[in-house]
Amino acid sequence: MIEWFDDLKLGMRFVTPEKRITREDIVRFAREFDPQPFHTDEAAAEHTVLKGLAASGWHTAAFAMPLILATKPFGRHPVFGMGVNELRWLAPVRPGDVLHLEGEITELIPSKTRPQGIVWIKWIGTHRDYDKIDVKRVQHGD
Amino acid sequence: MIEWFDDLKLGMRFVTPEKRITREDIVRFAREFDPQPFHTDEAAAEHTVLKGLAASGWHTAAFAMPLILATKPFGRHPVFGMGVNELRWLAPVRPGDVLHLEGEITELIPSKTRPQGIVWIKWIGTHRDYDKIDVKRVQHGD
Repeated sequence: MIEWFDDLKLGMRFVTPEKRITREDIVRFAREFDPQPFHTDEAAAEHTVLKGLAASGWHTAAFAMPLILATKPFGRHPVFGMGVNELRWLAPVRPGDVLHLEGEITELIPSKTRPQGIVWIKWIGTHRDYDKIDVKRVQHGD
Repeated sequence: MIEWFDDLKLGMRFVTPEKRITREDIVRFAREFDPQPFHTDEAAAEHTVLKGLAASGWHTAAFAMPLILATKPFGRHPVFGMGVNELRWLAPVRPGDVLHLEGEITELIPSKTRPQGIVWIKWIGTHRDYDKIDVKRVQHGD
């Protein structure tokens, strides 16, 4: 049980519950926050770089948050985000995907004056069928 | 008018329209995606590190997206996010804040084989009364 900052250790791991993302979730979020055809329109999405409807990257990030909260990484203390480094969307999140995340503490920076500190956790989100995805199909660059 | 990758230049700047974020927006988003008291419960939020209700960081990020899209940084071409580096939430976003962003192209990486490429844009979001905020009040660490 995590109570104090010192209870957290480098390499400590967290596994979130799974949750399914629906077509309705994806379209509703995108209409408000990311209204582009590959997020809002199933038919039009077929003809885009994503080759089908996929969640907005911001939706994927937000969707992850309650899963992370469910692991209570800091016990009863809040998960107060200061920032994110190297956020990457590596594969499309499709309607019906069942998502979960795994996290690992990569850095602990204790406060010099108070019994608290800054924790860096590397989170990786995947879905059950991830190994069936052709990531190259949606990667850019060369 | 931006049509081709080569029309984009280092240092090119974008200014988004403004939009007000409401208490209802903040609570609705947080109930679904970040259900912690400082995002969902005005009274409880007073006794947290944020000293009052504030938007989830993921809400702030998502809220920015349609403002960015409105600037059409790539003309008629989509804004397809590959990732974000050094995302930082430096000050709380409060109910009623009127937000906008300013962006600047910081890196252009042309494709070697196709008439496209990767564009890095540094976006900074602020609100009208930003200079009245005591950022230190919510900064962590020492």
